[in-house]
Amino acid sequence: MKTIASILTVAALAASLGTASAQPRTPAPAPAAPAGPVLEDFVPSTKNQPQQQYPMVNSQGYVRFCIDAPDAKSVVVTLGLGGSGGTVLSKGEDGKWWGTTAGPMDEGFHYYHLIIDGGVFNDPGTNNYYGSTRWESGVEVPAHDAAFYAERNIPHGKVEQILFWSPSTNCLRRAFVYTPPTYNPKSGKKYPVLYLQHGWGEDETAWSVQGHANLIMDNLIADGKIDPFIIVMTYGMTNEFGRGMGLRNWSPDAFQTVLVDELVPFVDSHYKTYKDKNHRAMAGLSMGGMETHSITLARPETFGWWGLLSGGTYRPDEIKTEVKGIFMSCGSKENAAGVTKAGEDLRAAGYNAVDYISEGTAHEFLTWRRSLYQMAQMLFK
Amino acid sequence: MKTIASILTVAALAASLGTASAQPRTPAPAPAAPAGPVLEDFVPSTKNQPQQQYPMVNSQGYVRFCIDAPDAKSVVVTLGLGGSGGTVLSKGEDGKWWGTTAGPMDEGFHYYHLIIDGGVFNDPGTNNYYGSTRWESGVEVPAHDAAFYAERNIPHGKVEQILFWSPSTNCLRRAFVYTPPTYNPKSGKKYPVLYLQHGWGEDETAWSVQGHANLIMDNLIADGKIDPFIIVMTYGMTNEFGRGMGLRNWSPDAFQTVLVDELVPFVDSHYKTYKDKNHRAMAGLSMGGMETHSITLARPETFGWWGLLSGGTYRPDEIKTEVKGIFMSCGSKENAAGVTKAGEDLRAAGYNAVDYISEGTAHEFLTWRRSLYQMAQMLFK
Repeated sequence: MKTIASILTVAALAASLGTASAQPRTPAPAPAAPAGPVLEDFVPSTKNQPQQQYPMVNSQGYVRFCIDAPDAKSVVVTLGLGGSGGTVLSKGEDGKWWGTTAGPMDEGFHYYHLIIDGGVFNDPGTNNYYGSTRWESGVEVPAHDAAFYAERNIPHGKVEQILFWSPSTNCLRRAFVYTPPTYNPKSGKKYPVLYLQHGWGEDETAWSVQGHANLIMDNLIADGKIDPFIIVMTYGMTNEFGRGMGLRNWSPDAFQTVLVDELVPFVDSHYKTYKDKNHRAMAGLSMGGMETHSITLARPETFGWWGLLSGGTYRPDEIKTEVKGIFMSCGSKENAAGVTKAGEDLRAAGYNAVDYISEGTAHEFLTWRRSLYQMAQMLFK
Repeated sequence: MKTIASILTVAALAASLGTASAQPRTPAPAPAAPAGPVLEDFVPSTKNQPQQQYPMVNSQGYVRFCIDAPDAKSVVVTLGLGGSGGTVLSKGEDGKWWGTTAGPMDEGFHYYHLIIDGGVFNDPGTNNYYGSTRWESGVEVPAHDAAFYAERNIPHGKVEQILFWSPSTNCLRRAFVYTPPTYNPKSGKKYPVLYLQHGWGEDETAWSVQGHANLIMDNLIADGKIDPFIIVMTYGMTNEFGRGMGLRNWSPDAFQTVLVDELVPFVDSHYKTYKDKNHRAMAGLSMGGMETHSITLARPETFGWWGLLSGGTYRPDEIKTEVKGIFMSCGSKENAAGVTKAGEDLRAAGYNAVDYISEGTAHEFLTWRRSLYQMAQMLFK
């Protein structure tokens, strides 16, 4: 069984190839702070807990924090301009700890946590999001193009939690299944399926919570931009002890067995799906892209559509079987040139390949929301 | 529109009547610590984040905490023996903060948080659970009867997240729908529906996360103890601004409109349900019981089965219409005599009423897991 060491080797390989790193949240190059004043139009982040005012975000993308810990010696927020090491808060006259990022943050969602007196804690103002193998704090800097995942008064699909017994890991495992609003098991209509993986340190909640995958699909369908399909999201950091043990003994082989030999048959027997590879896709972000790369090449009879979102690239010479389509993407602050070049190489070799660069974003979730929006319009056509 | 003041009046009324308080987490009377030594057989709580060792629980029910915040002046855990005010941690030679509850905690799930240098934060060792209008830390003291919500290799139902547009609150609202493993929209079979409400400060995630409602149902069905039914769980602290605003402007009238006039029709049009009151139940825990009490009496044409779980009682003289069955429960450390008396009074007046006391538990989730297990065996029969 492969160990985490081999995964890190793959990550190192990906980095050496100039593709996206498997480690999320690599700091982006520090942008220059704008010359003008910080505008005092701060409003609560949309990711805050009910009734919580802080953190706040202003129209320029600055984030302001306020932490109540009157007797603390030191409060640092890990979110800040790239290379800054975060944002050091200062104690105000009201006894609370205050601070604002030194410049605007990239649009979209950011994970972070607090370091209080040397310990790692969450900001009690925000909801929690599983990232970096822990439940993290999160803040949303509104994106100018956020309408594609807005909550609208349109028909909405479901996100269904399913539990399936996994013989290979001897435990009950969880997946979330997005079914489109038109999904109706009573009719004869069948749907294609996308198996969509989270990144390192995240879990099966990521795509439908911080990723808004269901809202992206609902909006695409309501606007007539895609034919509906199902999305299945499960935990990709599999090992012999099941989902509670994280990276220890993690292996792509173990996950391949769970996904291809256990979950795919479960989904095909419980949902109205097409059961052939031409109606089945696998894609993933970051480490999920690495898993996709490995599993689609190893089990080409299962998946006909492949997607790598900030998760590396395919080379024409490593593809040994027919593939219906390949999608590759990353943020403009990642290795965009590598993704663009890989797309050109694949198309030159005759493959149906699309490459997409998310403008102004790094290895974070706005890149992947936008990537799903683009990829969904390519799949199964 | 009624305000929170009127709710608190209802809570005060419930308290004055000797029924269960609407405020969760009232400290139970302090039990005497056992005379013997604390057994050193601590294991990680099942509610811990992946790979986290602390908090730990021993076979006697003691909980041990370890918090890493080397420069902190003070770390207090709000969980401890009733009346103790929590557990004060002490700095160890390793620089970490350590402490063990002064005695065994009740079996089951407990919310808590940390107070670090005067500020409120979560234990980074545990998962987060929405309670007390914030995402809280949680720990599980294994119950001797935990088998009824164990994860077994049996057919499992789904927990489906649905989004429905609410005209009265002008926003998209969320509910979770448990469908049993046999649920099959293709067949002609219809199912009864239980609308099941969380308590004050909790939300629509509570029953399927800390409550294990889906596992309780899966096990009851697999063991042939009940005929399957659907459970719908939505957010009960409704107001004009939607779910993000918490208690402000909260009113039972607003929730009654969302539940009875918006969600029930949505569920009946999207699921294979019986649409008559005799196949529809409403129940809730704590504040959700108060909502149930108010809404079932106000809208008796909608619900034929009523359940109050640590949420007060019905009196025969306030029931003006036909009701198929009434379930009332609480923990033995709550006002058990009041619930038992109410059951006797209702049966004496000719009603089909069941009262249930959860042995050895207070106003906490093991009481409500057990109550659901009991109530499910009464409903729709």
